[in-house]
Amino acid sequence: MRIAVGRAAQLLLEQDDILILTHQSPDGDTLGCGFALYYALKQKGKRAQVLCPDAWPKKFEYLYKEYKKEDFIPKYVVAVDVADTKLLGQLCPQFEGKIQLCMDHHPSNKLYAQYTLLDENTSAASEILYWVIKAMGADITPLIADCLYTGICTDSGCFKYSSVSPATHRIAADLMELGAHAYEINRDMFDTKTHSRIAIESMALNTVQYFYGGRCAVIYITQQMLEESGADESDLDGVSSIPRQIEGVLCGVTLRQKGPDAYKVSMRTEEPIDASKVCAKMGGGGHKRAAGYMVCAPLEEAIGQVVEALKEEFDN
Amino acid sequence: MRIAVGRAAQLLLEQDDILILTHQSPDGDTLGCGFALYYALKQKGKRAQVLCPDAWPKKFEYLYKEYKKEDFIPKYVVAVDVADTKLLGQLCPQFEGKIQLCMDHHPSNKLYAQYTLLDENTSAASEILYWVIKAMGADITPLIADCLYTGICTDSGCFKYSSVSPATHRIAADLMELGAHAYEINRDMFDTKTHSRIAIESMALNTVQYFYGGRCAVIYITQQMLEESGADESDLDGVSSIPRQIEGVLCGVTLRQKGPDAYKVSMRTEEPIDASKVCAKMGGGGHKRAAGYMVCAPLEEAIGQVVEALKEEFDN
Repeated sequence: MRIAVGRAAQLLLEQDDILILTHQSPDGDTLGCGFALYYALKQKGKRAQVLCPDAWPKKFEYLYKEYKKEDFIPKYVVAVDVADTKLLGQLCPQFEGKIQLCMDHHPSNKLYAQYTLLDENTSAASEILYWVIKAMGADITPLIADCLYTGICTDSGCFKYSSVSPATHRIAADLMELGAHAYEINRDMFDTKTHSRIAIESMALNTVQYFYGGRCAVIYITQQMLEESGADESDLDGVSSIPRQIEGVLCGVTLRQKGPDAYKVSMRTEEPIDASKVCAKMGGGGHKRAAGYMVCAPLEEAIGQVVEALKEEFDN
Repeated sequence: MRIAVGRAAQLLLEQDDILILTHQSPDGDTLGCGFALYYALKQKGKRAQVLCPDAWPKKFEYLYKEYKKEDFIPKYVVAVDVADTKLLGQLCPQFEGKIQLCMDHHPSNKLYAQYTLLDENTSAASEILYWVIKAMGADITPLIADCLYTGICTDSGCFKYSSVSPATHRIAADLMELGAHAYEINRDMFDTKTHSRIAIESMALNTVQYFYGGRCAVIYITQQMLEESGADESDLDGVSSIPRQIEGVLCGVTLRQKGPDAYKVSMRTEEPIDASKVCAKMGGGGHKRAAGYMVCAPLEEAIGQVVEALKEEFDN
């Protein structure tokens, strides 16, 4: 059942021993939501825990610096920024069908939870959590403000994407007044590149192939390239945006090797190409302007498949 | 004399045949201010003209699409986002000592005008123009909103720099509601790279030299590199930010060749390096985090000079 902000806040206040689930390959929004909610629940005297199928990246350390793991048997399970239980990765079998509350902003949300607070018109799930935490009557401390600001700036490309609304900017203004370290967060998220990031970027750009008369650009990153550049997962943030940034490109595709013949395909598009539709055909999902899926095939075949899947969009 | 917003608006309303001066190598902020003020003055039935020592870049065409040049003898001369009359380039001799009103946000402003509206605590002069235009009682049309939004997003690195305040975000929210095409502007300003931009970026990164134990990075762009990559001035926006983005770098310096032995030096810094102080020593100016100067010397000598000029900052 879909619910509104007030009801979500009420459900959270009524419960205790709350487990907060975040999605795999955790980003600033899922972790920002998770820890903001954790700190708010602690203020309200609850026991709470944040769980993620993958390790928390070190670059988000400032979000979990005051997190203390407590052991308890969860009585209430909440998912934040998780559109589909598949995105819980290895945790999926354990929690499938057992999630009581989901708070999310993805139009592709599968409504798998008992209660869902879904607002597709927000740039980040952290915008929704801002209203929920206020409705819970919790203080937005500087640390909670940092969590929510991180979710918003990372999911909105630092206020650049079409998902940004006047409300996004007003929440950002409030969060800055409440103590968010906006400048430092943006500097670390967007304006700091490791030497290996610079190397992997230049390697990836050397792989660019164009299709549909230059309107589609495809790049790839293999495990060998990662080894040669010394780059790791945390160096790859935002790499998927690169091919779409090339002049005249309406659809940018990035393939990242995940195993011998396994690739994560990320798609970034401009009007009128619907990434969410194309990726859904391939078993994935996401937003209109940003979506993705996993594919098990050799590289050339994987590229051929995604180009073929885009045919209908480019023919129209 | 320094004045407040209301007085600046009053002065503008009292005058007619107004000439608006913008600075050389015009950017989004000086042009955003210039054309926003022009459209507001037209609404108020005034004759007005925008003048710039250099050509208006094509990428800002959407700002001047409704501009109509009128011939008249200026009775009132206004400068926007111009910290120093030197920045009027070839127009300087003509207007030195004749500027009645200056509206600006640079701490280095020389207070050369009869009246100066200066607010150093804004991310862009366009923030100041927002309040002035409102105080003039002019409507902020979608076109004026585009002008002011452009000034703010380009001068704030899309809301990333330390100059961004809660007020910056609230003005951005207002401008979006008033019809600013935020997504399209940000896409064109920040997320579109020509093939020649990609080429010049990779060439420039190949010139990187480190000093002071990796805390200072210097890159350069020669006219030969521009020719080889096919890049022109408009491809170079934001290039000066690149060396500062490298991990561990507190001061990034970019030298752009302007003549046989002439270079424009741009400096971008992190706490505690004061770019404005260092560049002032070299005859230039700007902000604490972003400043620059011109130098006439061969490349290696120009690099040696800037590294030497930074010694005191790095020794402290």
